[in-house]
Amino acid sequence: MLPTRLTRESFSDFGDVIEISEKAEHFTINDGYTERYHDLAQVDVMAKGGRTLINIFRSSPLDKPLAIKMMERHPLSSQAFMPLGDEDYLVVVAPAGDFDSSKIKVFLASSKQGVNYHPGTWHHYCLAVNNTSDFMVIDRGGDGENCDAITLDGSLVIEI
Amino acid sequence: MLPTRLTRESFSDFGDVIEISEKAEHFTINDGYTERYHDLAQVDVMAKGGRTLINIFRSSPLDKPLAIKMMERHPLSSQAFMPLGDEDYLVVVAPAGDFDSSKIKVFLASSKQGVNYHPGTWHHYCLAVNNTSDFMVIDRGGDGENCDAITLDGSLVIEI
Repeated sequence: MLPTRLTRESFSDFGDVIEISEKAEHFTINDGYTERYHDLAQVDVMAKGGRTLINIFRSSPLDKPLAIKMMERHPLSSQAFMPLGDEDYLVVVAPAGDFDSSKIKVFLASSKQGVNYHPGTWHHYCLAVNNTSDFMVIDRGGDGENCDAITLDGSLVIEI
Repeated sequence: MLPTRLTRESFSDFGDVIEISEKAEHFTINDGYTERYHDLAQVDVMAKGGRTLINIFRSSPLDKPLAIKMMERHPLSSQAFMPLGDEDYLVVVAPAGDFDSSKIKVFLASSKQGVNYHPGTWHHYCLAVNNTSDFMVIDRGGDGENCDAITLDGSLVIEI
């Protein structure tokens, strides 16, 4: 499967794209020295006494050919990833609800784009493409089972 | 005033340093492909019905010489900044409580270090040093007055 370029519109069934865009609400602050691109993602982490966590993930690229062998979802919360370097990365998702492998979508995200998976969106974990990549991750802390994972047969291979 | 290098210890009276560090709690996830540096900052945004916002700030450098002419604080919430590029930046803070200009500290943060101001910590706004700089910002949305600002005479000049 070939990835398509990540856009706000193409990703809207799965979550938010976090990026500087004229389509986003934005306004000038700090005596004119800063443009604030405002409220770019729906952070949804409060279920069952949850709280917002800030983390950094350091991810190694998967082996090539890049076969998709798992997907996961967080039923209780959103999870946002923002790249901290200049590495593009892959985003593999399927709609919330009963998992349907025929509905998997593969996006190529630029290093200037973050994603925020909405609660329940099926996704592969962080997919660095070429080099070790760091991401700032905003997710949930708190009690409750918040990760369902399923195993796939690896027949879906991403061409990059 | 000359800035000092930002460290977790030197900043502990003002907030958290968000960085990959062996001193942080961290563990391996994602079939061994990711190291998670966990819960790096105290996100405190829930007062008076607040919620977590994800934003991007695009900041221009101030004119040189770099005179400090204001400070602000957010009494209801923390505010976290993580650089998205490879630009170092300045962090100017003073302790929470009655503002005391004799207690201002100036730190030089690397592009690999974020900061999270705790509620009430006095700080200057984003201080890009040389070039336009983008930051991911985690702060609060919701009602209530959440920004106190004071004007300074500009006699404090940062040497860089």
